[in-house]
Amino acid sequence: MPYVNIKITREGATAEQKRQLIEGATRLLVEVLGKNPATTVVVIDEVDTDNWGIGGVPVTERRRSEGQPPK
Amino acid sequence: MPYVNIKITREGATAEQKRQLIEGATRLLVEVLGKNPATTVVVIDEVDTDNWGIGGVPVTERRRSEGQPPK
Amino acid sequence: MPYVNIKITREGATAEQKRQLIEGATRLLVEVLGKNPATTVVVIDEVDTDNWGIGGVPVTERRRSEGQPPK
Amino acid sequence: MPYVNIKITREGATAEQKRQLIEGATRLLVEVLGKNPATTVVVIDEVDTDNWGIGGVPVTERRRSEGQPPK
Amino acid sequence: MPYVNIKITREGATAEQKRQLIEGATRLLVEVLGKNPATTVVVIDEVDTDNWGIGGVPVTERRRSEGQPPK
Amino acid sequence: MPYVNIKITREGATAEQKRQLIEGATRLLVEVLGKNPATTVVVIDEVDTDNWGIGGVPVTERRRSEGQPPK
Repeated sequence: MPYVNIKITREGATAEQKRQLIEGATRLLVEVLGKNPATTVVVIDEVDTDNWGIGGVPVTERRRSEGQPPK
Repeated sequence: MPYVNIKITREGATAEQKRQLIEGATRLLVEVLGKNPATTVVVIDEVDTDNWGIGGVPVTERRRSEGQPPK
Repeated sequence: MPYVNIKITREGATAEQKRQLIEGATRLLVEVLGKNPATTVVVIDEVDTDNWGIGGVPVTERRRSEGQPPK
Repeated sequence: MPYVNIKITREGATAEQKRQLIEGATRLLVEVLGKNPATTVVVIDEVDTDNWGIGGVPVTERRRSEGQPPK
Repeated sequence: MPYVNIKITREGATAEQKRQLIEGATRLLVEVLGKNPATTVVVIDEVDTDNWGIGGVPVTERRRSEGQPPK
Repeated sequence: MPYVNIKITREGATAEQKRQLIEGATRLLVEVLGKNPATTVVVIDEVDTDNWGIGGVPVTERRRSEGQPPK
């Protein structure tokens, strides 16, 4: 019955990587707390880099100043 | 003042169905707890089936194995 | 598989009222979207009135100015 | 280390306005609680007006009845 | 920068188990998406069994009908 | 109608500080987006330091290694 919400920036996570996050998070709850995987919900939210800030600065700007093209 | 967040997979919920979810959730808080509907907020998040896992498997894969086309 | 999160102020909701919220929210998802109740999760968060603000004012202060004793 | 989540309706907030929300929310946590901006996360969720209800009515309908074109 | 929120029922998870959840969730984001652990936030919410429903029934009742004493 | 959720570790934030967070977050939404303060909801979640991890380590442990007594 656990509910796991993973929020990441929208920077190209593939369907396979999201499958691994879902599988890994579910396995973690089974192994550590013995939870029932059948009712363990994992939801991944992908957030635009304009909408995610750290250190008071949007990630879009941080990427630009790090010389990385926006994805 | 209650805040209700409904997370569902993005599988074709219509505007009318979402209106019914908003209306029904608000009425529930009024009837059970006598809350003021005017300040009751209901937010519906629709999540891609690649991003929603149950039993360690993305819903996209579950639908495929259930023989359902992705919506 | 829907996930419903209901946030209310901690002002004396009884176990029975919370049971009605859980039952009503689940029934709503079944009736409107045909969801499977067995995997519908409802989580109620009760928040202290010092920690909930509306109109820029904590609910504790609003209750006091409305002449209501804190619960 | 604080985590601030700002949910607003998707009604045309510009990148600059979102930058100001990120900057302002981070500054608020620094000024009030002395938190470290470098690990303060701010996430803005923009929600379609069909998916946001207040008073039991989707914002899309409220805007229409207020004579405002949907954005 | 990822934010992981793990919601579980309040049924006796120990400090050590919560440490393992934090460590495991962080490692998962590093291994799958190459994220920076230093800015990966994991928050565990423990919810009373009266406040968590599945199948329209509070977990407190489910435990009772399963013959388990509430924790 | 915005909804702002501020998650902080439970480390002694006073009622006055939480009032300032509520007031400041509401003012931010008014000033940047012209939102109506009367329907702006701010909710503060305080999380035990055992339940909050950064860099894969619970804050309780980080505080101990920083020589700070748990609050």
